[in-house]
Amino acid sequence: MAAPLFRRMALLGVGLIGGSMSHAARRGRLVDEVVGHARSERTRARALELGLCAAMYDNPIDAVRDADLIVLATPVGAYAALARAIAPVLQPGTIVTDVGSVKGAVVQDVGPHLPPGVDFVPAHPVAGTEHSGPDAGFAELFENRWTILTPPEGTNPAAVEKLAELWRGFGALVDVMKPPHHDMVLAVTSHLPHLIAYNIVGTANHLEAVTESEVIKYAAGGFRDFTRIAASDPVMWRDIFLTNGAAVLEMLGRFQEDLSVLTRAIRFKDGETLEKFFTRTRAIRRGIIDAGQAEPEDAKKK
Amino acid sequence: MAAPLFRRMALLGVGLIGGSMSHAARRGRLVDEVVGHARSERTRARALELGLCAAMYDNPIDAVRDADLIVLATPVGAYAALARAIAPVLQPGTIVTDVGSVKGAVVQDVGPHLPPGVDFVPAHPVAGTEHSGPDAGFAELFENRWTILTPPEGTNPAAVEKLAELWRGFGALVDVMKPPHHDMVLAVTSHLPHLIAYNIVGTANHLEAVTESEVIKYAAGGFRDFTRIAASDPVMWRDIFLTNGAAVLEMLGRFQEDLSVLTRAIRFKDGETLEKFFTRTRAIRRGIIDAGQAEPEDAKKK
Repeated sequence: MAAPLFRRMALLGVGLIGGSMSHAARRGRLVDEVVGHARSERTRARALELGLCAAMYDNPIDAVRDADLIVLATPVGAYAALARAIAPVLQPGTIVTDVGSVKGAVVQDVGPHLPPGVDFVPAHPVAGTEHSGPDAGFAELFENRWTILTPPEGTNPAAVEKLAELWRGFGALVDVMKPPHHDMVLAVTSHLPHLIAYNIVGTANHLEAVTESEVIKYAAGGFRDFTRIAASDPVMWRDIFLTNGAAVLEMLGRFQEDLSVLTRAIRFKDGETLEKFFTRTRAIRRGIIDAGQAEPEDAKKK
Repeated sequence: MAAPLFRRMALLGVGLIGGSMSHAARRGRLVDEVVGHARSERTRARALELGLCAAMYDNPIDAVRDADLIVLATPVGAYAALARAIAPVLQPGTIVTDVGSVKGAVVQDVGPHLPPGVDFVPAHPVAGTEHSGPDAGFAELFENRWTILTPPEGTNPAAVEKLAELWRGFGALVDVMKPPHHDMVLAVTSHLPHLIAYNIVGTANHLEAVTESEVIKYAAGGFRDFTRIAASDPVMWRDIFLTNGAAVLEMLGRFQEDLSVLTRAIRFKDGETLEKFFTRTRAIRRGIIDAGQAEPEDAKKK
């Protein structure tokens, strides 16, 4: 049995991702101890009941004391205040990381608050479900999914490697890229799809000609695939769009250009354009299945 | 054991839906015999190998001879020609139905070709997967999913009830509505989601800043939910947008209005508008789960 990678992992936030990290870390004996912080008393109590953390603190400073790995796992809008709050007690050699879905803003918000000698290695596990809160976590969430590390220029390579080892211990595949590129890639693979899903569910919600009960009854026609991702945590997604606005707006512009072409093809009954467009998109689905990144039940059908 | 509802069911088209109807009909002993027609020799051979049909014909007229139930199960663009082709041999009392995703155009395209005494009862099983072809069918596809019947004014009620009985025998829930209302409901619950999914997958496919391989690797962030429905049959979807264009364009207009609000909120960092919007959409997901219309694996999690 290899020695644990970290002595004490402090989770600031114990929702879907933080909770799943606790499950995966304890399962793999990758850390000696997990402690946590949450603002709400109910969440703290639940994290203890579920065994996610050995101790839960209402003040983040108490959670990070003596931790050699600190994970920011709240919505990204709360990171700056957390970093400021914990900075005074951070010891050199501590690794600070996060799990946020945007990285450029995180590097700007968190980095400047951390004292010299502390290694900041931002991370983004590209995995999730539409469920949130401490009960949503499970040990297998990261298996065979990519986690992207975006160390700022000059980060200690040993810290990056140690964090990569932790994620590989969770079953994840690990990639390293620059924060702005991460934000562009995720704008198209995650942020734009969520925005569009939220939007279409909103549209369906306030039609006069079609009732909500009809939308629900016939959701199996395609709509339900959108409602799943449109059920994700609203505060987390608010923060993503507030902090990655530029990349999302750029992708939205491209999306709109393409949609104009399809709209015009429908208006002028241009079947050839429609069929060509619909045929090209099949290949990318095939690629996702072949790469093992489809939904679990589909990967099995392969 | 009740007597079969139909003596001979003729499937004109043996893809996902036609194939599944054969499985479900034989499983429930709801028909004595299933025969079929397909244009391609390969499909005809495969349908025989799979046992979907006792006989397969290259000419639709041979498939429908002596059938008391005829099912149009090709893409809707082929219906008019099929109806014209089979009309000369149709006997009074025969029920003709279809499984298309649009109904207004189908009533116009098929109805006028049928001789008096033949009952035309259009149907739309709101169920499917992204797979197509004779191998894609399975007996459980329609279970606990809605099938919508849209009999034109003046249709024989006994024929409607007999067809409803068949669908209930397949495990489906049955609704009856007018064709134009069906087309509006499906425009929002199925056609618009598919159009948007096709579009977003297309957008991701021709970016300069993000490679196709990156899109595939990080698809688990939300994108993959769109790729599944964007892998559906291109010809079927071409025909849907050609025949339900007006309703789809209306829904697209509403979608665009809503998207303008979200786009502006992102541009001006209006977190309150974003959070409010993202919170409202959760309720509809809950409704879908409660109505038993979520994806099978999610319904279980309830």
